[in-house]
Amino acid sequence: MATLKIPHPVPSAAEDAEHLRKAFHGWGTDEKAVISILAHRNADQRKEIMATYEELYKENLIKRLESETSGHFERAMYRWMFGPGEREAIFANVALKEKVDWVVIIELSCINSPNELLAIKKAYQMRYKLSMEEDVASHTSGDFRKLLLGLVSTYRYSGEEINASLASSEAKILHDAIKKKTFDHDEVIRILSTRSKAQLNATFNRYKDEYNTSITKVLRNALNKSGTDEDSLTRVIVMRAEKDLLVIKEMYHKRSNESLDQAVAKETSGDYKKFLLALIGN
Amino acid sequence: MATLKIPHPVPSAAEDAEHLRKAFHGWGTDEKAVISILAHRNADQRKEIMATYEELYKENLIKRLESETSGHFERAMYRWMFGPGEREAIFANVALKEKVDWVVIIELSCINSPNELLAIKKAYQMRYKLSMEEDVASHTSGDFRKLLLGLVSTYRYSGEEINASLASSEAKILHDAIKKKTFDHDEVIRILSTRSKAQLNATFNRYKDEYNTSITKVLRNALNKSGTDEDSLTRVIVMRAEKDLLVIKEMYHKRSNESLDQAVAKETSGDYKKFLLALIGN
Repeated sequence: MATLKIPHPVPSAAEDAEHLRKAFHGWGTDEKAVISILAHRNADQRKEIMATYEELYKENLIKRLESETSGHFERAMYRWMFGPGEREAIFANVALKEKVDWVVIIELSCINSPNELLAIKKAYQMRYKLSMEEDVASHTSGDFRKLLLGLVSTYRYSGEEINASLASSEAKILHDAIKKKTFDHDEVIRILSTRSKAQLNATFNRYKDEYNTSITKVLRNALNKSGTDEDSLTRVIVMRAEKDLLVIKEMYHKRSNESLDQAVAKETSGDYKKFLLALIGN
Repeated sequence: MATLKIPHPVPSAAEDAEHLRKAFHGWGTDEKAVISILAHRNADQRKEIMATYEELYKENLIKRLESETSGHFERAMYRWMFGPGEREAIFANVALKEKVDWVVIIELSCINSPNELLAIKKAYQMRYKLSMEEDVASHTSGDFRKLLLGLVSTYRYSGEEINASLASSEAKILHDAIKKKTFDHDEVIRILSTRSKAQLNATFNRYKDEYNTSITKVLRNALNKSGTDEDSLTRVIVMRAEKDLLVIKEMYHKRSNESLDQAVAKETSGDYKKFLLALIGN
């Protein structure tokens, strides 16, 4: 369900490295050649190309790409080059350092499986020499800290077993907190940040049965919509192209009357546009 | 630095299983034989004995031990039989279910390395089909929940790199919170529950230099001493016998004018006493 398209047969890492080197050569960069290679290799293949490139030409491919590209294209390409764990660690660090962009932190803690989140936290520690939890905690405060820190810290249970009576009692806690406005932040945060996905689904279904409204509807109305900027667009496409972007594309099309390709083509330009469209499988 | 003594050469798992079977045979159990075998095998060897015993006699060795022993001896033996991750998961579950015994939870989250804590959390999920975080969060409340949940959840950075200016600013936060009594729980909890051991050491040293008193002294005075009961005694000895009990023994002797052996001999009796003394290396 990925959108990434890899040629058959795929060139060797040495061939790719050589073609990239040529694309960088002389005045100006052959961005088209760069995209035609790197937007069509998976994480393992990109890693091998990086190692081979460094071996052959004694320079770091990512640094060279940074000097050869600019703007949104540079940022997208830079993010694309890393494996999933390290890439999301970089996203998280940028989100925490520049301003606390909570959408990024919520996204990475909720979309990834517990073990994927753990891999991101390990990559974060390797790269920044401290834990993601420390950075989340020291850049936030109050209820907001409790929620974000809870989402990032918990190593959730990832199995399917659920407790039905718990689903019922916690649906009531959520209902009382939201509908009756006796807003008990601590309990809402506790439930959302510690329960497993399966248990939360059971609780939300129970909520729907019991109170005739879906909790996601309630929550969606309560959340501010953040405008779509290039950074989020890059983030979603780069993160999901090797994973489940095909499903996202289909859902996007159903909900918005235009295809994701059309929307991206309309909103972006230049090499950045070509690169994203290549990753989307256009 | 373990106190566990293993004979050379060590009998095969099949021989050990056969001797255990004999010790269970007929009226009464030969507890001395059971202790002479199981108190002198490491975690891997015990695991192999359990597998071999089950294969040979089609019964679960742990269940058989439970039916052959009783009281504190049964509890100590039961805990001893598991590997470290699973054993501490069981301790945690008992601590959370019967009453919230926060000493056990603080102990396991602070003494273990981040990866050891993770192994315990994985064992907890395997065994109880939910996360340790869920159980900690749903059995506690208020500041107490924040602290315990923080300690259990965080996947701390385990490297040696520290940030000196952070140590200084966080020593000041702790000092203001404790000495000036402007008790800012959130900040104290944030620091204690997210920072790495190396960073906390740097902060505590800075605290000592800056304010001429050690934070551990301040904290020790603030903590209630919990009486030593058999459960904690068992927990410490069973958990550390294969790890660092020798160091603990030495420190105990220095601080209390009697050896740990003497103290244990005085406070316990029967097979329970014999078993603990065997694990202590007596």
